[in-house]
Amino acid sequence: MFGNIREECGVFAIYSKEKTDVNIQTYMGLYALQHRGQESCGIVVNDNGVFTHHRDLGLVPEVFDSERLNKLGKGNISIGHVRYSTKKQAARNNAQPLVIRHVKGPMALAHNGALVNSSELRTKYELNGAIFHSINDAEVIAYAITERRLTCTSIEEALREAMYKLKGAYSLVLMSPKKLLAARDPIGFRPLSIGIMPDGAYVISSESCAFDSIGAEFLRDVLPGEIVIIDEDGLRSDTTHCNKYESHLCVFEYVYFARPDSVIEGSSVHRARLRAGKYLWREHPVEADIVIGVPDSGLDAALGLARESGIPYGIGFIKNRYIGRTFIQTTQTERTNAVKIKLNAVRDTVAGKRVILVDDSIVRGTTSKRIVSLIREAGASEIHVRISSPPFLNPCYFGTDIDSREKLIACRMSHEKITEAIGADSLGFISVGSINKLAGNAKCGFCDACFTGKYPLEVPDEPPVDKFTRKIGE
Amino acid sequence: MFGNIREECGVFAIYSKEKTDVNIQTYMGLYALQHRGQESCGIVVNDNGVFTHHRDLGLVPEVFDSERLNKLGKGNISIGHVRYSTKKQAARNNAQPLVIRHVKGPMALAHNGALVNSSELRTKYELNGAIFHSINDAEVIAYAITERRLTCTSIEEALREAMYKLKGAYSLVLMSPKKLLAARDPIGFRPLSIGIMPDGAYVISSESCAFDSIGAEFLRDVLPGEIVIIDEDGLRSDTTHCNKYESHLCVFEYVYFARPDSVIEGSSVHRARLRAGKYLWREHPVEADIVIGVPDSGLDAALGLARESGIPYGIGFIKNRYIGRTFIQTTQTERTNAVKIKLNAVRDTVAGKRVILVDDSIVRGTTSKRIVSLIREAGASEIHVRISSPPFLNPCYFGTDIDSREKLIACRMSHEKITEAIGADSLGFISVGSINKLAGNAKCGFCDACFTGKYPLEVPDEPPVDKFTRKIGE
Amino acid sequence: MFGNIREECGVFAIYSKEKTDVNIQTYMGLYALQHRGQESCGIVVNDNGVFTHHRDLGLVPEVFDSERLNKLGKGNISIGHVRYSTKKQAARNNAQPLVIRHVKGPMALAHNGALVNSSELRTKYELNGAIFHSINDAEVIAYAITERRLTCTSIEEALREAMYKLKGAYSLVLMSPKKLLAARDPIGFRPLSIGIMPDGAYVISSESCAFDSIGAEFLRDVLPGEIVIIDEDGLRSDTTHCNKYESHLCVFEYVYFARPDSVIEGSSVHRARLRAGKYLWREHPVEADIVIGVPDSGLDAALGLARESGIPYGIGFIKNRYIGRTFIQTTQTERTNAVKIKLNAVRDTVAGKRVILVDDSIVRGTTSKRIVSLIREAGASEIHVRISSPPFLNPCYFGTDIDSREKLIACRMSHEKITEAIGADSLGFISVGSINKLAGNAKCGFCDACFTGKYPLEVPDEPPVDKFTRKIGE
Amino acid sequence: MFGNIREECGVFAIYSKEKTDVNIQTYMGLYALQHRGQESCGIVVNDNGVFTHHRDLGLVPEVFDSERLNKLGKGNISIGHVRYSTKKQAARNNAQPLVIRHVKGPMALAHNGALVNSSELRTKYELNGAIFHSINDAEVIAYAITERRLTCTSIEEALREAMYKLKGAYSLVLMSPKKLLAARDPIGFRPLSIGIMPDGAYVISSESCAFDSIGAEFLRDVLPGEIVIIDEDGLRSDTTHCNKYESHLCVFEYVYFARPDSVIEGSSVHRARLRAGKYLWREHPVEADIVIGVPDSGLDAALGLARESGIPYGIGFIKNRYIGRTFIQTTQTERTNAVKIKLNAVRDTVAGKRVILVDDSIVRGTTSKRIVSLIREAGASEIHVRISSPPFLNPCYFGTDIDSREKLIACRMSHEKITEAIGADSLGFISVGSINKLAGNAKCGFCDACFTGKYPLEVPDEPPVDKFTRKIGE
Repeated sequence: MFGNIREECGVFAIYSKEKTDVNIQTYMGLYALQHRGQESCGIVVNDNGVFTHHRDLGLVPEVFDSERLNKLGKGNISIGHVRYSTKKQAARNNAQPLVIRHVKGPMALAHNGALVNSSELRTKYELNGAIFHSINDAEVIAYAITERRLTCTSIEEALREAMYKLKGAYSLVLMSPKKLLAARDPIGFRPLSIGIMPDGAYVISSESCAFDSIGAEFLRDVLPGEIVIIDEDGLRSDTTHCNKYESHLCVFEYVYFARPDSVIEGSSVHRARLRAGKYLWREHPVEADIVIGVPDSGLDAALGLARESGIPYGIGFIKNRYIGRTFIQTTQTERTNAVKIKLNAVRDTVAGKRVILVDDSIVRGTTSKRIVSLIREAGASEIHVRISSPPFLNPCYFGTDIDSREKLIACRMSHEKITEAIGADSLGFISVGSINKLAGNAKCGFCDACFTGKYPLEVPDEPPVDKFTRKIGE
Repeated sequence: MFGNIREECGVFAIYSKEKTDVNIQTYMGLYALQHRGQESCGIVVNDNGVFTHHRDLGLVPEVFDSERLNKLGKGNISIGHVRYSTKKQAARNNAQPLVIRHVKGPMALAHNGALVNSSELRTKYELNGAIFHSINDAEVIAYAITERRLTCTSIEEALREAMYKLKGAYSLVLMSPKKLLAARDPIGFRPLSIGIMPDGAYVISSESCAFDSIGAEFLRDVLPGEIVIIDEDGLRSDTTHCNKYESHLCVFEYVYFARPDSVIEGSSVHRARLRAGKYLWREHPVEADIVIGVPDSGLDAALGLARESGIPYGIGFIKNRYIGRTFIQTTQTERTNAVKIKLNAVRDTVAGKRVILVDDSIVRGTTSKRIVSLIREAGASEIHVRISSPPFLNPCYFGTDIDSREKLIACRMSHEKITEAIGADSLGFISVGSINKLAGNAKCGFCDACFTGKYPLEVPDEPPVDKFTRKIGE
Repeated sequence: MFGNIREECGVFAIYSKEKTDVNIQTYMGLYALQHRGQESCGIVVNDNGVFTHHRDLGLVPEVFDSERLNKLGKGNISIGHVRYSTKKQAARNNAQPLVIRHVKGPMALAHNGALVNSSELRTKYELNGAIFHSINDAEVIAYAITERRLTCTSIEEALREAMYKLKGAYSLVLMSPKKLLAARDPIGFRPLSIGIMPDGAYVISSESCAFDSIGAEFLRDVLPGEIVIIDEDGLRSDTTHCNKYESHLCVFEYVYFARPDSVIEGSSVHRARLRAGKYLWREHPVEADIVIGVPDSGLDAALGLARESGIPYGIGFIKNRYIGRTFIQTTQTERTNAVKIKLNAVRDTVAGKRVILVDDSIVRGTTSKRIVSLIREAGASEIHVRISSPPFLNPCYFGTDIDSREKLIACRMSHEKITEAIGADSLGFISVGSINKLAGNAKCGFCDACFTGKYPLEVPDEPPVDKFTRKIGE
Repeated sequence: MFGNIREECGVFAIYSKEKTDVNIQTYMGLYALQHRGQESCGIVVNDNGVFTHHRDLGLVPEVFDSERLNKLGKGNISIGHVRYSTKKQAARNNAQPLVIRHVKGPMALAHNGALVNSSELRTKYELNGAIFHSINDAEVIAYAITERRLTCTSIEEALREAMYKLKGAYSLVLMSPKKLLAARDPIGFRPLSIGIMPDGAYVISSESCAFDSIGAEFLRDVLPGEIVIIDEDGLRSDTTHCNKYESHLCVFEYVYFARPDSVIEGSSVHRARLRAGKYLWREHPVEADIVIGVPDSGLDAALGLARESGIPYGIGFIKNRYIGRTFIQTTQTERTNAVKIKLNAVRDTVAGKRVILVDDSIVRGTTSKRIVSLIREAGASEIHVRISSPPFLNPCYFGTDIDSREKLIACRMSHEKITEAIGADSLGFISVGSINKLAGNAKCGFCDACFTGKYPLEVPDEPPVDKFTRKIGE
């Protein structure tokens, strides 16, 4: 699959006892998390209580050049954020981290996820005189915290109190003049990990791949419901909100969102995808000559399927390495097939062969159709599509843009119709049962609501996408 | 004088019954008000309740190109703002207009001025859970309004209630989905005028010169304390806050801030400056061959002095028309005198002559020294400096950056020392008495606190500049 | 007049015995010459034979920022160029200085003017295998020089030989690894002056105002036909081509192109314009209450007319100081009159008065019409237009864009019709006789061909504008 | 290997009988050829003899946005070029295609390759008065053509004559007002192919992958020495220069430069690389648990090796998809290893395993060392490096930057030392014999001079890199 579903965000943070290059480390961490959000990004550096921040629309290396990083300067704490990209909501106002002034000092906040009661909370705060500048849930969370900040003795207490109000998915990092906090909602929808640098500095990241990029070592995951507090006394944990609910990590993190080199809840994403290939073969075997994957997220499952089946693994596509966000969209380029510009089939691999084509998901079916057609034109004699996730049948309310049922092909068509629509000779989806076994040694449960409709939390009647279409300009 | 004192802002707004090019009209209005603020600018267009806005650092034609204006689109109401420029506070966050979401609908706000109780109000709101994103007083004013919005039946009532809380200088425009409001503080520090387009659309502007630029006609000034409400029923006025105080328009608007082609409180700025020249001559006559003014704001007073004295008026300087904000500052360029790059003396006008050199003000004295030196090098035999404002002795709390006493040359030196410091043969300031007579037919009183220390409102103990140095990043 | 006629270019050069900030000095010099060309600019720095250059479309402070100037680096010789602006020909390829590689070492060249035999020479060189990258005459001149370079013992000899071939207007600066050359065509159409820095460095500039900007002193004009050679032995002169023809300096330099603070051929531009006002009054007296000039180039003549007539001089217009090249052009802004955005009348100066309005020229009449209308709307009872140049009746072949007869209003209409077309109550042009007396003490003759049709050189049959419309892309 | 060796260029051209979107097609073609050059790019569109061009530093989607492509406009012929990237030579002047004016009409030219006699020709032309603006061989080729253009009856005849003079590697496209020409040097160093669109339009491209991107079909390769002429009469061929020499296609095109989905001289690049893996295993077998390739160019050979050996193929690295040219280089980022930012090891694949690591080449050894270290840190127990090209021992004179012997690790160290230097447990290079068999069915001979020193042409004494360091600024 080819960039059709989007994670909302990625967060990163670092706490060092000494003033150091936290600006550059956060930059590198965000860079490793870029796949979680390409719309906008931002960094806040805390130098002894003085916050300096920059955020803008664009990729990490576009928004931050040497000059910008130098202006941010060194410090001892820093948090950063990458945000996803859908055109209609691209707005500088919505970029995170959120930085706010308060009588008790400044606070900066970045989160990944989505609240199911944000409209409700937003209205409540507005009725009390609150002013909202953005459509971010981060701003709602900030109000929930500042509401309690005056009566609480510490920022972590204020966060703990606020968490009683917040319903939904959130993995957040929060910085006060002297502390770095990290917290994960009690159900644990989105990942969040703790790492440690060789010099003892603590690092927080949505995924462990960011630790590798700066030479940090993975320590452990933040627990569902846990608040981690890092300050001059080291790292401690507030588990007030832990173990109230069963955990439900988004299973699609393993299938699509996360990078294969990340380890989430103790389970390697790469290995989970190899397993997906294995189950796919077991559930949908077929005679074939070659197994190919759609780059980049279909490659691992393809290799898993090839290994399980004994059918040779092949390199079926070349992906243009120079894809930029700025690639021009014209009637002409659309006519000649946008997919063709990014991907090209390796004729030598597929010509005259019976091909098993592995991808991670089918949302609307249009991209799948084009990819199948590329392989067909390159001379494949049969094309058997295998998908390493079950069909999407329900919207997601917890921070991805799998949205209304109307657009999901699996809600509109039978299996046969889909097979025909995408031009495949056969089509097989992995089963829900198997997908819950991908992360073999993960210590948590999974949310598979987009496949099953079993939401681990009560969800609103209105479709979740509404939240994003409220727009106040820019 | 040469850009040393800065007005904080200029505001512009338009209300049309029909959907029309309010984006372009606001653009042109702001362009005419550019002299009131060069740091940042912004426009919000209201198209049937849908607000679209853009704001950024830069001059009006830099921030808005055709594409941007098209994206803003047409509408029936629009407000705009230009903000002044001092490096240390340049921040996109602080650009106006402010656009906020609220349960009763969006609101956009732009103001010119400075509150004396903003710290106090800010702290109060923060204690109630408010979150501030900027250091703008506009955000404080917004909280004062939203605080009352739920219990008030209308936005104008909420503004009226809020005005009981706001102390200081403010000339503001405010847009709700259906209404355009304009208000001026009860003391009337900053100007604000109403104009009307040939098609009946109402226009609000800090200065009347913006009316000329779009073909609108001057109607009247907004009264001190007045709230003007414009909606589908036309224009009406709420005078609850009028006539509670004596009015005190900033007299420096006539001397320096406003454009000579503007008319404020019924008095032409150009004529006020001609009068300044007249009084200057009467108070400080001297034998001379030629009268020259420092462009641009010293020219009118120079002409007035020449006419009164009978001494010929001359063109003493050529100003480089292509001065950009981007002009490079290097050790070298500073060494060779930044003034020299922008101004050059016309040798033919001054060589061998006794010159009366008219400028509008002396703040620190460094620029005056350089200008005198230009004329001296061009061969003037005597240089008599005449200044169309009295010496600055006190900081301004009402929206200009005439700040701490330490930097004001007149606080540090005697008249003789200043004369010597700037290299003049004689030096004359206009008297406080005369300056209050500049706007002959103005219907208002004047604030001359920067010269006299007589503040029309109680001012805080802390120097006013503090407010601007609180910085939270970017 | 308001930017309707354009000079082609301005040149600047400096030669220092020591390696110094020639990059910054050239930058400042070009900045002072910006009025001679706003389309593109460029600088070449020569550091001990190594040439570094940068040129691009844009104003001097847009094209060169600190980083760019630092990259150019210091050196001991530098040349620079500003080029004029007409949209259709804007092309980076055409920016100067021209830098070329040659077996005898690199050479850089910048010129102001236009050859009348450039098409002929261009064809000749192309027939010999030459390749042209631009439509610049500079490239033609470069070929004329390199053609002789191998057989000549020095670069100055090659230039001397080349000058036998070149017909038309050229004031050029030329840099070899070790020498700076400056040359002016034998008729002396365009100005070119020599200045000297306090440390003995020599400076060449199209106008003397650039000397003031860097603290150089005016030494003398380059003679018509002279080649000035500056190298480690100092400055020497080759007068081979001098005194072959009568000199004919473009008289419009005094009226419009040059800055009033420049001195050309010993005559102050400011004083020449004062004189123009004097003659205008003598030739076209009229009863009036106030004399105003159109900024910026009409102000001096207005003052001269006021002095001669005894009628008060007034400030009739405010010009928007923030005019950028980027000002948006839309149907709407055009409808509301582009002039209005840049200029506004000072109502107080003209309302109810009989006004003498002084401008420097009328080309097509459209701008004049708008300006007259501004004053009329501001309440003037009578408007008497006085123009400090005679009517344009003939195209210019020597480096300005006064072009085909069809567009010149004076070729199409009678005096009465023009008066009516621009909406004036009366109209007076200065006479050809008077304009030749403006530069009282100039030691040269003048070219007034655009008024009289008496070209000092044989001109081609094809209209001169053709040369500019040959376009090969970008 | 990771971007250490650079091809100089890629060319693309299209000829359509009808005016159509040749601008967009060339854009898409260049986009597919981006891997052949990332420094600068350019497109020239020919609309009925009118040439419009744009070229600048940057990637294709950076240099060309919708507006730029629209400005280029439609046409019936177009040529384009991508140029490689090494900082020191980045210069807008050197961007291609070259567009030149000539008495016989404009001409545009783009080429891939390098002449061995360019210095000699350049000097000869300079002695005849030629002026060079760039250091491109394209300019030398242009002079060789224009030299003959006047005496030749056609552009193709002029090119044919010119080719007698040109020595070295060149694959070029050339456009006159009515014709598109393509030519390849008689030895055929660089690839060049002909394709055809469904509507009969002809396409020329350095590689066939560009045909796929626009829906064209591969027709045939241009022959070594052939001139292909395309005009309204269709495609015809001039074979005057064919079959004079044995052909020698750069063998490194198969190993590294070309995209795996291209077919060159009838041989699939992907298959050639699979073969390289096969030969590598046969020549250097070793006991191991997993075979991994360095993305992107090492993957195919790794798969080939895995297949031949029966050892499982694994995904050993994740490459950051968002690598931009703008990634910041700081001391810190360098310290933490630039490779780490772009690549991360998949721990799950390699931990505890004996790993065969396949890469395409070793130049200086530094990158290889870092990559080996990544795998070592990820827990590999043994690392056996296999390289799908022989050791580099000689500079390339034919258009790549494999340069002086001092920098080539294989010239400085023994096999054992290199193994140790890069930290591998064993190291194996493919043999020269095998590399000449990679393109099994290719109809041509190969140049392997960088490995063997057997140059198919006499090469100059001076090292080839010199040509690039002659710099005249910008």
